[in-house]
Amino acid sequence: MKVSFLNDYSEGAHPKILEQLSKTNYDQMPGYGEDPLCRRAEIKIKTLINNPDANVHFVSGGTQANLLCISSFLKPFESVIAVKTAHIEIHEAGAIEFTGHKINTYEGKNGKITPQEIEDAILYHYDEHMVKPKIVFISNSTELGTVYTNSELTQISEVCKKHSLYLYIDGARLGSALTSKHNDLSLQDMAKYCDAFYIGGTKNGALIGEAIVICNPELQNFFRYHMKQKGALLAKSRLIGAQFDVLFDNQLYFELAKHANSMAEKLSEGLKLKNIDFLIPPSTNQIFPIMPNKLIEKLEKQFDFYIWKRYDENNSVVRLVTSWATKPENVDLFLKSF
Amino acid sequence: MKVSFLNDYSEGAHPKILEQLSKTNYDQMPGYGEDPLCRRAEIKIKTLINNPDANVHFVSGGTQANLLCISSFLKPFESVIAVKTAHIEIHEAGAIEFTGHKINTYEGKNGKITPQEIEDAILYHYDEHMVKPKIVFISNSTELGTVYTNSELTQISEVCKKHSLYLYIDGARLGSALTSKHNDLSLQDMAKYCDAFYIGGTKNGALIGEAIVICNPELQNFFRYHMKQKGALLAKSRLIGAQFDVLFDNQLYFELAKHANSMAEKLSEGLKLKNIDFLIPPSTNQIFPIMPNKLIEKLEKQFDFYIWKRYDENNSVVRLVTSWATKPENVDLFLKSF
Amino acid sequence: MKVSFLNDYSEGAHPKILEQLSKTNYDQMPGYGEDPLCRRAEIKIKTLINNPDANVHFVSGGTQANLLCISSFLKPFESVIAVKTAHIEIHEAGAIEFTGHKINTYEGKNGKITPQEIEDAILYHYDEHMVKPKIVFISNSTELGTVYTNSELTQISEVCKKHSLYLYIDGARLGSALTSKHNDLSLQDMAKYCDAFYIGGTKNGALIGEAIVICNPELQNFFRYHMKQKGALLAKSRLIGAQFDVLFDNQLYFELAKHANSMAEKLSEGLKLKNIDFLIPPSTNQIFPIMPNKLIEKLEKQFDFYIWKRYDENNSVVRLVTSWATKPENVDLFLKSF
Amino acid sequence: MKVSFLNDYSEGAHPKILEQLSKTNYDQMPGYGEDPLCRRAEIKIKTLINNPDANVHFVSGGTQANLLCISSFLKPFESVIAVKTAHIEIHEAGAIEFTGHKINTYEGKNGKITPQEIEDAILYHYDEHMVKPKIVFISNSTELGTVYTNSELTQISEVCKKHSLYLYIDGARLGSALTSKHNDLSLQDMAKYCDAFYIGGTKNGALIGEAIVICNPELQNFFRYHMKQKGALLAKSRLIGAQFDVLFDNQLYFELAKHANSMAEKLSEGLKLKNIDFLIPPSTNQIFPIMPNKLIEKLEKQFDFYIWKRYDENNSVVRLVTSWATKPENVDLFLKSF
Repeated sequence: MKVSFLNDYSEGAHPKILEQLSKTNYDQMPGYGEDPLCRRAEIKIKTLINNPDANVHFVSGGTQANLLCISSFLKPFESVIAVKTAHIEIHEAGAIEFTGHKINTYEGKNGKITPQEIEDAILYHYDEHMVKPKIVFISNSTELGTVYTNSELTQISEVCKKHSLYLYIDGARLGSALTSKHNDLSLQDMAKYCDAFYIGGTKNGALIGEAIVICNPELQNFFRYHMKQKGALLAKSRLIGAQFDVLFDNQLYFELAKHANSMAEKLSEGLKLKNIDFLIPPSTNQIFPIMPNKLIEKLEKQFDFYIWKRYDENNSVVRLVTSWATKPENVDLFLKSF
Repeated sequence: MKVSFLNDYSEGAHPKILEQLSKTNYDQMPGYGEDPLCRRAEIKIKTLINNPDANVHFVSGGTQANLLCISSFLKPFESVIAVKTAHIEIHEAGAIEFTGHKINTYEGKNGKITPQEIEDAILYHYDEHMVKPKIVFISNSTELGTVYTNSELTQISEVCKKHSLYLYIDGARLGSALTSKHNDLSLQDMAKYCDAFYIGGTKNGALIGEAIVICNPELQNFFRYHMKQKGALLAKSRLIGAQFDVLFDNQLYFELAKHANSMAEKLSEGLKLKNIDFLIPPSTNQIFPIMPNKLIEKLEKQFDFYIWKRYDENNSVVRLVTSWATKPENVDLFLKSF
Repeated sequence: MKVSFLNDYSEGAHPKILEQLSKTNYDQMPGYGEDPLCRRAEIKIKTLINNPDANVHFVSGGTQANLLCISSFLKPFESVIAVKTAHIEIHEAGAIEFTGHKINTYEGKNGKITPQEIEDAILYHYDEHMVKPKIVFISNSTELGTVYTNSELTQISEVCKKHSLYLYIDGARLGSALTSKHNDLSLQDMAKYCDAFYIGGTKNGALIGEAIVICNPELQNFFRYHMKQKGALLAKSRLIGAQFDVLFDNQLYFELAKHANSMAEKLSEGLKLKNIDFLIPPSTNQIFPIMPNKLIEKLEKQFDFYIWKRYDENNSVVRLVTSWATKPENVDLFLKSF
Repeated sequence: MKVSFLNDYSEGAHPKILEQLSKTNYDQMPGYGEDPLCRRAEIKIKTLINNPDANVHFVSGGTQANLLCISSFLKPFESVIAVKTAHIEIHEAGAIEFTGHKINTYEGKNGKITPQEIEDAILYHYDEHMVKPKIVFISNSTELGTVYTNSELTQISEVCKKHSLYLYIDGARLGSALTSKHNDLSLQDMAKYCDAFYIGGTKNGALIGEAIVICNPELQNFFRYHMKQKGALLAKSRLIGAQFDVLFDNQLYFELAKHANSMAEKLSEGLKLKNIDFLIPPSTNQIFPIMPNKLIEKLEKQFDFYIWKRYDENNSVVRLVTSWATKPENVDLFLKSF
């Protein structure tokens, strides 16, 4: 068996989650998000972001969270602004378009949208022959492993408010972002800057599941109708409620993310010592070293990872991902295999 | 705490499922349905239906399975034939219509579509000013707890073939149907008669999840694209794979359903002794007794259940549902509470 | 050549329309509804309904008007209430469902929805597992040639207001309705009772085109975006503007409809003298006589018309439609051909 | 009144069209494309492209033709390849996305897609996490007034065949393309290279209307269902049939386009004499001169035209469009107004 650095969802769940599932297994509970476990998780999340008026909903995956939120927030002719590397643009098989909405893409910088690009989008789309941009979609951490700083997010939020745009944050790897050494953003501030976001469980120690948080009251109404219609309202919501209840107990969620980040750091520090450069300076649990093709071939015999793209004739960019369950000895093994 | 006869997803999962999740928890596995647990479950299901060429896919819920299958099988102008009591018609918040398709509804008989109604639908829709019916949707067991006999399904299948219609079966409660005392249909025969169906896990002992089985090869291509686009392709597919792997080990799936049915039978036999009549003769784990409103009020203090509809001035129809986890003592308690 | 009583769009346009097209042919005009001809037609219509704040938009056909209005007024999970004989339910090839919305159908009475049915729809759809009815769709005249009385429309409007439903009227044959001998409804009152309606040109003397009138201000915003997105915003809007400008000059629109009605009356009076009964008492330019099959066969040699449905072994219901251009001598010819 | 160079749909219709409408006005005809005028136009078009097996359908506008064809040719997860300047990408208010499909955009060259870009699109989209490109969309002439050469189209067609992609051509200004001095492509060859295209009437002398031509038999089935469902099947199809019948009588269509092109040529030759440069070398009836802002301000007092974009601090790119009805004296007037 090869050791995998393919992604952060290669293992099962944190053992405390499995324990909780066992413990509550025979309790009879209502479904569809109305069970006590969802309620407890909801309260913990609202306390954490310090917003008692937020709405929290639990769904099974990230693409589902994105298509559900975006399609429920928009009118038919409204569109989403995103960078070209955004998950919704590339890796959701046209899920957003299937719900009827266009994505207006911009180059971004290191996977992050710039305030100027948002201004450009507004300027460019001025009449009814064009779509009307209404949501700014960002991921934190981004698809390139970078994080938004407090100052960057403040500016984006201001542009959004100026043009009555909603700011929506894909937090598939939110834990990793907020516990990054390069992060200066608090969860509370982030929640204040945006209209809605989701907290990823799948990539941070849960069996399955994401928690959608809707901060803007005007987006809260009828959300459960949208959930049901998109097949996202789970009968046995207790499964996801139980997990977020555990994850937000005593900061477990952040500890797991910290571990993933520290394993990535250990990996990148080791790589730097071997004079390996990076496509983008590592910040979170996804790192993008540039490695000689021969070395890659050798490593592939022992390890699983993605070749991200060609760099030049002799080198390629590789994506290495660590997780809450990555063992330090496997990082050492990787570094020793050069 | 009241005892609940509200539905068959009030409890967690069969303990063997939780065990399996623990046992495989730290194994690194690929995602998106390509993990060894999904593969094992897939093989078991294909063996069970005796069709090595079927395709099996795992999703998180029943509405999702229905909208995914129906929207992927149809061209934009094609429609679904279903009875008025069908889940897709009433209880999916317009999920099928959101994917662009009309449902042509018929009265049915005890929750079951008749071959004549299918013939009527075909006769009625004859040109391009109307939709073109292409799928016949049935549930087994039905939303009224009844089951399709072998003869009924054979006839429906023949009408479908005659008119080049696909037959799709919602098996949210398939276990309960196939283990009913009134059932004379084998899973293999059912799989032969239809083009696709799903096997419900959520309502028969799983934490979450349904297994979609596509028997007709012309419907198999590109299904994973549809799954991804609808947010149904789970990164941690292992969660559902593991469960179906356990459920189809040594007939566990059918044993759980048999237990639910036997608890429903115990309940209905007890009610009959109290001279309670039924809206529809009980066959599976959903029963519909007609009870005096005063009695209902009394029972509601101790038990949770749905009032299905008004029967007459003094009586109402109630829905009682038993599950794999229903305890005989709770059935006794109910019967004693009159 | 057979004489046709198939429909009311068998001929071209009233000659004054062709004249106006010639007269304005070389005037350079802006497009997309911003030309002076559309503006003039708009003002005439707003004056006629005595509502200066209404919005008027011109589109090419009735199905387009219906799908455009309904999809722009509804949120994704909201539905339309309509009778089973409604054009949107049967004869638009699933156009409404393609835009994502369910139609909740009711029996109605003589093609007309009843206030009680609207109340039933609201009562029945009470939570997020079901769609949420939001529009009541009616046609005036109806698909069965009947008209809504002032009292009927008042009651429907009151139920709609009570439940915050929009009332939308398909006026494909509005002229015929408002000039019927059985009509006691004024256009102004109708416009007050509803939130939006369209005035049909195609079936009342125009070459093509319908005028959508949005009375409710909350439905007016961004409508041109919806039009463009659905392919309904015509570059050469002048074509339709010119026609409605002419049609609403000196009551021409109503004169044309009156002629169609009077030809239908002449036809039905003649038929009554021959002891022919009707499926529904004739009111407008569509009549539904019940005729012996042998007679029908004979008539079909000289005339075109639809056989609506089987009545009994020896008789069928036939639909005869007259138009602004129907010649009295052709009615006589029909009556003489028995 | 200002003279307009805004677009090619500022005037009415060629007088022969109005004549034909008058001449056939009282003939009773069937609707929905089954009238003799549509049939005659259809035969002329099929003869012209030398393909008796093509299907021809008439619709009211270009955005409608595009959304109708694209949505009927694609499966839900399939996408369209187009240049960034494509009409469907920018100027159709998200019409394609509303039907559920993504547009994959590429830079192109002078408004034209390159074979390499199509190859890139195929290479890039390789699994079910991404959409699957299936249609290549091009406009001829393009949105920048350029034309595809025979060699360019041959190469594009070959790449499409290699990857089983459909080639669809937006011919809103097809007349202008095929009669351009820079054109070496015959209509017959173009029709052979592609799977479907539309012939624009609106921008070349018709009152309204486009003729969709489906060459690939596998795309022909059920097209009328799609038309009806999208509100594109016109009851009074005679209106558009009559126009294309006239336009394809004695090459009128091409003569009108030739006139538009010759007026644009006269205009650009005149501008060149005044040392005005162009953003793109003029080929058809849309030209893009770069003019000093002060001059633009002066010209705007007498003429209507679009300012396309900023060129530098003192200059802007302007779009001037001529039509079948442009008068030479108005071109002279423009050139004299400097």
